[in-house]
Amino acid sequence: MDTKLGYSSKYKTHLTSDITKEREGEEALISGWITTFRKKGKIAFIKIRDAAGIAQIVVKKDQVSEEIWESMSDFTMETVIRIKGTIVADDRSQTGAELKPELIDIIAKSDTLPIDLTSKKTETLIDTIFEYRQLSIRRPESIAIFKIKHHIGQAVRQFYTSNGFYEIWTPYILGASTEGGAEMFKVDYFNTPAVLAQSNQFYKQATIPVFEKVFGIIPSWRAEKSRTPKHITEFHQIETEIAFGTDETIMEVQEKLVHHVVSHVLEHCKAELKLLGRENLKIPTLPLKRIPFPEAKAMGTELSEAAIDGHKEPEGDLSTPAETELSKHYDDPFFIIRFPTELRGMYYGSDPDDENITLSLDLVAPEGIGELSSGGVRVDDPDELVERTLKKGMDPELFKWYIDMFKFGGAPHAGFGLGFERLVRWITGVSHIREAVMFPRTPDLLEP
Amino acid sequence: MDTKLGYSSKYKTHLTSDITKEREGEEALISGWITTFRKKGKIAFIKIRDAAGIAQIVVKKDQVSEEIWESMSDFTMETVIRIKGTIVADDRSQTGAELKPELIDIIAKSDTLPIDLTSKKTETLIDTIFEYRQLSIRRPESIAIFKIKHHIGQAVRQFYTSNGFYEIWTPYILGASTEGGAEMFKVDYFNTPAVLAQSNQFYKQATIPVFEKVFGIIPSWRAEKSRTPKHITEFHQIETEIAFGTDETIMEVQEKLVHHVVSHVLEHCKAELKLLGRENLKIPTLPLKRIPFPEAKAMGTELSEAAIDGHKEPEGDLSTPAETELSKHYDDPFFIIRFPTELRGMYYGSDPDDENITLSLDLVAPEGIGELSSGGVRVDDPDELVERTLKKGMDPELFKWYIDMFKFGGAPHAGFGLGFERLVRWITGVSHIREAVMFPRTPDLLEP
Repeated sequence: MDTKLGYSSKYKTHLTSDITKEREGEEALISGWITTFRKKGKIAFIKIRDAAGIAQIVVKKDQVSEEIWESMSDFTMETVIRIKGTIVADDRSQTGAELKPELIDIIAKSDTLPIDLTSKKTETLIDTIFEYRQLSIRRPESIAIFKIKHHIGQAVRQFYTSNGFYEIWTPYILGASTEGGAEMFKVDYFNTPAVLAQSNQFYKQATIPVFEKVFGIIPSWRAEKSRTPKHITEFHQIETEIAFGTDETIMEVQEKLVHHVVSHVLEHCKAELKLLGRENLKIPTLPLKRIPFPEAKAMGTELSEAAIDGHKEPEGDLSTPAETELSKHYDDPFFIIRFPTELRGMYYGSDPDDENITLSLDLVAPEGIGELSSGGVRVDDPDELVERTLKKGMDPELFKWYIDMFKFGGAPHAGFGLGFERLVRWITGVSHIREAVMFPRTPDLLEP
Repeated sequence: MDTKLGYSSKYKTHLTSDITKEREGEEALISGWITTFRKKGKIAFIKIRDAAGIAQIVVKKDQVSEEIWESMSDFTMETVIRIKGTIVADDRSQTGAELKPELIDIIAKSDTLPIDLTSKKTETLIDTIFEYRQLSIRRPESIAIFKIKHHIGQAVRQFYTSNGFYEIWTPYILGASTEGGAEMFKVDYFNTPAVLAQSNQFYKQATIPVFEKVFGIIPSWRAEKSRTPKHITEFHQIETEIAFGTDETIMEVQEKLVHHVVSHVLEHCKAELKLLGRENLKIPTLPLKRIPFPEAKAMGTELSEAAIDGHKEPEGDLSTPAETELSKHYDDPFFIIRFPTELRGMYYGSDPDDENITLSLDLVAPEGIGELSSGGVRVDDPDELVERTLKKGMDPELFKWYIDMFKFGGAPHAGFGLGFERLVRWITGVSHIREAVMFPRTPDLLEP
């Protein structure tokens, strides 16, 4: 563990988090970006940001040269400076110490920013935030979101590898004949029509005779013109597939995963959660609730029709308003289980006692966030797959390699895909999923 | 740590690796795929594969029912079976124990395979291997490659997170105006022309004011009709960018990364390396050699012209044959440093004392594998970027958001991109990079 690895000692021997009482007397060199600067008579206050956080430096006119004091008129926001000094104990500081500066110089002066990085009004700034995304990712709220996202990613991978899962890498460009559909982005593959993967379902199923338990945080694309707070066109799914797994075992995996991730974030990201007003995040109580689909549908109907004037819940799957209201009703994630066969993809396995019901499930986040994951038992019999494909009005020839694969050792298996950015949205509490992405892609956002 | 998490106890209470002397007397249930089956009079030998490896089960006719004995005529390769039995100590076994079977049943009988999974003749099988990739990934050689790849991925992430780097997620679909070029795959983005990212260079540079030290194992695409052993069209780069980093510090990061990854693989993948004939893999001696470009070019010219009849090394960059011969000359990875400015992208920073030389470098794998990574110091001055862009004959307006970003706190920085699959190819010793990918994409491979 060397947090300094990669930094040049010309610029940095310490991080802002190293300015502590324990290091009193050390010579320290820090570099970073100015977030606030204020002069008051013969004292100047500088806040400087680096990867570890923010440090306040107090500069007294008589401690530094005239030249340094004058250069501070160029201390605009986001200007990069370097400060050399001595660490001194100071009980007024949060860390119990301060850096007493001896040399300060400007590495790169910043022009006036086209957006206000300090404004907390995310909602009113929203268009500007994405127009200047290369700059707005430096807002304190964004930094907090992306630090939490980093920790969520690490916690997810840690969970899987420590429980004996193997990471897989599935293809992103697929032959257009494989799945087709209006919701896939088209790619010109050396003059052959191709698409970007909307799902890697078929591929992850193919890998279980190699590894049995597989996972990945894998890109997916959906060419859908949905302008909702939970849709982006380019996203990642936490993919999982388990040979000899069942609907019960994949629920256990998911609830332990969510438990681990939330615990990890609460342990490592206290300051970030506080900055985002997300101190109320709590570790879910296990086991999570399992609500059979008909019951969820009835509850969702009742709640949404009571909450939304004029809403009439349609037949079939839970509508978005019904899912949202049901989600608001709970403060822990919960499962909706046993979806009707007609509502699920052709690869979902049925209850052996009732072919109209699949052994499938969605994990739903609380607080109005809605669906996080979909999964279930898979069909592992090639003849049944042909039948199910025909029933869905599709041509089994299009999926020939996939269906035929089950002729060669089709083990029973189950799996799920959990939206990575949706998980980040829930944990960070951001109102729109695009805030959980550095450079999001939506029907309206393709640049930067 | 629960290696059983996700398995149904109907199918599995133990992995093949749990059949050990220490567990003598335990009742065990294992499930998996048959890799070999042989009957010899009143004794049958079954080899069964699961995620943990392969176990041999010896069945004596008088130990099991007549029905079970007869069912074994269906024990074709890749048939999925379940075996229940007792663990008994046996010094003849490698693990010091065997599973004494009491119940065996078939879960899914396999048809005759269209390819021979046991053949070691990768070269002659190569077309079939990729035609039936969903099956050939179960070859012992493939399983070894992908287990090593899993460990390489984990070691890479472990290295970065333990050294204070943050993981980033950059966009994959880019506006076509951003970079253009014949080597990018075109995407139809809601009727707007777009491309798949060939590089996330601009985006990773944008993230350093947020995190300073960033990394990711990030997909990239190159629409190049190169039919060489080191090219695929869809691949991953281990991306790194470091604020306040230099050419020296990114070399230190890379050599420590390679050292950590190789050490990790040697520790965790002994059996897999042996199966691949890669016992000769050794931990590189640090620091790695740094060879200035003119010296590397002269050596590469001499070596390739001596080794290859009729080869005449052209002017300019190292040709592939010269790079290959130079790479064969060493048994540890090495750096080529200080490339001429005219050979590098517009974002590479020059030596302050010589504008014709960039502070750039390639990491080259030994044993004829060639280039693993490219990187260097970046230009952080917007005016210099405009000038460099014009000199390369490109229009700076196309990169406006990128260039302008450096007006707002352009810290000095450096970084690199290291080909993930190339690293896997080198470590596993496979002859063609596509063998390092479960479902590779090349000009000739788009399915499955």
